[in-house]
Amino acid sequence: MAFEITKDLLENVTLHIENGNDNGLSMLFSEMHYADIAEVLEEISYNEAVYVIKLLDSETTSDILIELDEDVREKIFEQLTAKEIAEEVEELDSDDAADIIAELPEERQEAVMSQIEDEEHVKEIEELLTYDENSAGGLMAKELVQVNENWTVLKCVKEMRIQAEEVTRVHSIYVVNEAGQLKGRLSLKDLLVASTRTPISEIYIPKVDSVHVNESAEDVANVMRKYDLEAIPVIDDHETLVGRITIDDIVDVIKEEADKDYQMAAGLTQDVDSDDSIFHLTKARIPWLFLGLIGGIGAFLIMEGFQDLFSEDAILFFFTPLIAAMAGNVGVQSSAIIVQGLANDDVKGSINNRLIKEMLLAALNGLILSVFLFLFIWLYNGEAQKALAISVSLIVVIIVAGLIGTFIPLFLNKRGIDPAIATGPFITTSNDIFGILIYFWIAKLIIGM
Amino acid sequence: MAFEITKDLLENVTLHIENGNDNGLSMLFSEMHYADIAEVLEEISYNEAVYVIKLLDSETTSDILIELDEDVREKIFEQLTAKEIAEEVEELDSDDAADIIAELPEERQEAVMSQIEDEEHVKEIEELLTYDENSAGGLMAKELVQVNENWTVLKCVKEMRIQAEEVTRVHSIYVVNEAGQLKGRLSLKDLLVASTRTPISEIYIPKVDSVHVNESAEDVANVMRKYDLEAIPVIDDHETLVGRITIDDIVDVIKEEADKDYQMAAGLTQDVDSDDSIFHLTKARIPWLFLGLIGGIGAFLIMEGFQDLFSEDAILFFFTPLIAAMAGNVGVQSSAIIVQGLANDDVKGSINNRLIKEMLLAALNGLILSVFLFLFIWLYNGEAQKALAISVSLIVVIIVAGLIGTFIPLFLNKRGIDPAIATGPFITTSNDIFGILIYFWIAKLIIGM
Repeated sequence: MAFEITKDLLENVTLHIENGNDNGLSMLFSEMHYADIAEVLEEISYNEAVYVIKLLDSETTSDILIELDEDVREKIFEQLTAKEIAEEVEELDSDDAADIIAELPEERQEAVMSQIEDEEHVKEIEELLTYDENSAGGLMAKELVQVNENWTVLKCVKEMRIQAEEVTRVHSIYVVNEAGQLKGRLSLKDLLVASTRTPISEIYIPKVDSVHVNESAEDVANVMRKYDLEAIPVIDDHETLVGRITIDDIVDVIKEEADKDYQMAAGLTQDVDSDDSIFHLTKARIPWLFLGLIGGIGAFLIMEGFQDLFSEDAILFFFTPLIAAMAGNVGVQSSAIIVQGLANDDVKGSINNRLIKEMLLAALNGLILSVFLFLFIWLYNGEAQKALAISVSLIVVIIVAGLIGTFIPLFLNKRGIDPAIATGPFITTSNDIFGILIYFWIAKLIIGM
Repeated sequence: MAFEITKDLLENVTLHIENGNDNGLSMLFSEMHYADIAEVLEEISYNEAVYVIKLLDSETTSDILIELDEDVREKIFEQLTAKEIAEEVEELDSDDAADIIAELPEERQEAVMSQIEDEEHVKEIEELLTYDENSAGGLMAKELVQVNENWTVLKCVKEMRIQAEEVTRVHSIYVVNEAGQLKGRLSLKDLLVASTRTPISEIYIPKVDSVHVNESAEDVANVMRKYDLEAIPVIDDHETLVGRITIDDIVDVIKEEADKDYQMAAGLTQDVDSDDSIFHLTKARIPWLFLGLIGGIGAFLIMEGFQDLFSEDAILFFFTPLIAAMAGNVGVQSSAIIVQGLANDDVKGSINNRLIKEMLLAALNGLILSVFLFLFIWLYNGEAQKALAISVSLIVVIIVAGLIGTFIPLFLNKRGIDPAIATGPFITTSNDIFGILIYFWIAKLIIGM
C-alpha cells in the first residue's frame, strides 16, 4: 500500500508536461491518491506544478492543494487567477476553504471571494475567518448533519440524505431544538437499528460532548484524545450549534504541537525540514546559536574574573566544560518534564511543591554523580581538597540548574507564554552561565578554607 | 465541558468509601465519563480504587481500566480474582482485551483466559496476542462490520444490524468475497442514500486502503495521517481481512512517538511524568547525566593535555564553555532536523548529499558567528591573532558538530536503530569532546604560526 515517489515517475511526469501530453498526464494521475499527487508536485518545479493544477479537474486539485506545503501552495496561487482559485475554493469544505483564503494576500482575498458563486459558502467562509486560527472556531467546519428534535425518523432520514450530500464524512448526527441549540446526538449505529417510525425526541442521546468556539486548539485536542472522540460539535455563547471539528484536523494539531515543542527544544525557531533551503535553515538556526554565543561570552567574562585562581588551581578551569554540560543537561531534563506535563494538562498543585520535589531529586542525582567525580579526581591527582571543592560545587550547580529548569517553564506558563521556549538552548545557555558562576564561587570558598 | 478534579470531589469519594456509602458513590460516578472516573481513581489510594472497581458494573469499569496508567492498572489487578478480571475483559473490544491480557503475569494470563465465557472472544484475543505490539496486528481490533459482495442491500442491512451490536463505532463497512478477501468498502454515506434493493456488488467502492498485519505502528500512523483515514482494514498475506485499526488508537501512537522522541532529546531514558516518584525520576535521568559526566572528564583530560598553553594563552581556556555550547547546540539542531525528517518519512536522497548540504549550512552559520566573536575579542583585548585563532576554530568546530549531528542519526537509521537516541545528551556530550579537542588543536596551530 505504501506509495513511493520514484525517479521514473518524476521523469515521466516532467516528460509529459514538456511534450504537452495532457492525456498521458491525466491517465497517470487518475490512478493516484490526491495526497500522493501532492507529494509529486512538491518534487517538480512550480511551473510544472501549475501546469498539472490547471490540467486536472478542480474536484481533485482542490484536495491536492490542501495537502501541499504552505509555501508551495502560495507560489502556485500566485500564478492562478482569482477565478481559478475561487473554483478550487468552491470544492472545499468550509474549514479548508477558509484556511486557503486566509493565506492569500489581503487584496486577493476579496477578489477570490467575489468570484465564488455559492453564497452560502461565502457566508460560511466569512464567519470562519473571524475566528482565531488556533481556536475551536478556526478548526471547525460548517458542514455537519443536524436534525430537529421535533422531527420523526422518516423526515429525519429524508433531510439527512440531502445534508449528507454536502458532508464528506457523517460521524454523528447532531440534534438541535427550534432555536438551533445543541440538544444531543443520534449515533449512526442507533440509526441502523431503529425503526423508521420512531420520533427523534425518543431515540436521541441527550448527553453530548461539545466545545466552545473560543476554546484553544490544544484544549480541543486534549478533550478529543481523552474521550476518544472522532468529531465534536462546537457551540457559541448561546449553546447554538455552529460547527463541527473532526479528528483528522486534531491529528494534525497534535502532530504540529509535538513537532513545534521538539523543534523548540532542539533550538530551532521555525518549522523547518531538512529539504528547506540553506538560507531558510540558517534563519531557523542562527537565533539560538547567537544566544549560545552571548552565553559563551558571559562564561568567558566570569572565568576571566576568577583568573587569579589560575596559577594554583588550574584544574578548576579544566572542569568548566563538565560543569556547564551537567548544568545544561539537568536544566533540559527538568524543563522537558514540566513542558510535557503542561501540554498534557497534568501538572497540578503548587509551584512551591514542584520546586521542593525538584530540589530533592536534583540533590539525589547530584550526590550520586559527585561521589563518582570526587573519587575520580582524588584517585587521579590525590588532591582531596580540590576534589571536594569541585564535587560539592557540582551538587549545588545541579540543584540550581534543576530549580531553574523547573521554575522558568512554570513561570512562563502562568504568564500565558508558551513554556516550550524555556527548553533547549534557552535553558542550557542560562544554566551554563549560572553554573559556571556558582561553581567558581563555591570552589574558591572551599579551597580558601 | 472541561472536567476538573476538585479537592471537594476527592474528599467526597474518600468519605463515601470510608462510610461504605455505595449508593452515594454510584450516584456520584453515574454522572461522570469513564475517562474522568479513571482520573479520580489515579488520585486516590489503590485500595480505594479497588473498592470503586468492585462496586461499579463491569461495563463501566472495563472502560475505566483501559484509561488508567499501566502501573495503576497493574496494582488494581493484583487485588482482583481471575474471574473478576475475566468479566472486565469480556466487556472490552478484542484489541483492548488483548492489551490487558498481555500486561498480566504469565501464570495469570491462562487463569483469566479460561474464565472468559465467550469462546469467540477468547479465540480473537489469542490471535491478537501473537502479533508484535508495535505492528498493525498489535493495534487492530477484530470487531468490524463486513458484508459479502454477493449479498443484496437488504440482506446486508440485516446482517449489519447484528454485527453493529458488537462494534462500538461502525466507520466503514468492508466488502469481502466468499474467501474472506478484502474487495472494497461501502461508505455509510452511500448506505444512507442507496435504495434497499441495490446489490452490494454494484454499489461498493473497489478501491480501499489497507495495511498488512506486520506493518509497523509508525508506518500505519503515517499512512492514516497522510490519507486522513479514520479506520483502516488490516489484511494478511492472502489479502484476507483480519482486523481493523481506528484513528483513536493511532492518535495515541502519534502522541506516544512524539513524547518518546521529545524525552530522548531531553535526555530522559524512560517515559516519566512530573508526578512520578523521585526514585523513578532518578532512574530516568541519571543514565544520560552519567554520560555527561564521563564526557566532562574527557574534556578535562584534553584540556590538561594542552596545559602548556596556559601561561601565555589563558584566554583560550576561558572560551571552552563557549566552544562546548556551540558544538552541542549545532549538533542538537542538525540531529533534530534529521530525526524529525526520518519520523515523517521525508528524508530522501543520499547521505553524502545531506552531509555536503549540512557542511555548507554549518560553514555559513559558523562564519556569521565567528565574525561576531572575532570582533568581540579583538575589541575587548586587542589581540588580533588570538581572536583569529579562536574564531577560526569556532568555524571548524561548528562544521564538525553539524556533520556529526547529521551523520549519526542517518547511520543509526540505516542500521535499524532508532535515530532518536542520537539527539540530546548523546550528541551534546560527543560534540563537547570533539569540539574542545579540535578547538585547542587548531588554536594552537594558528597561535604557533
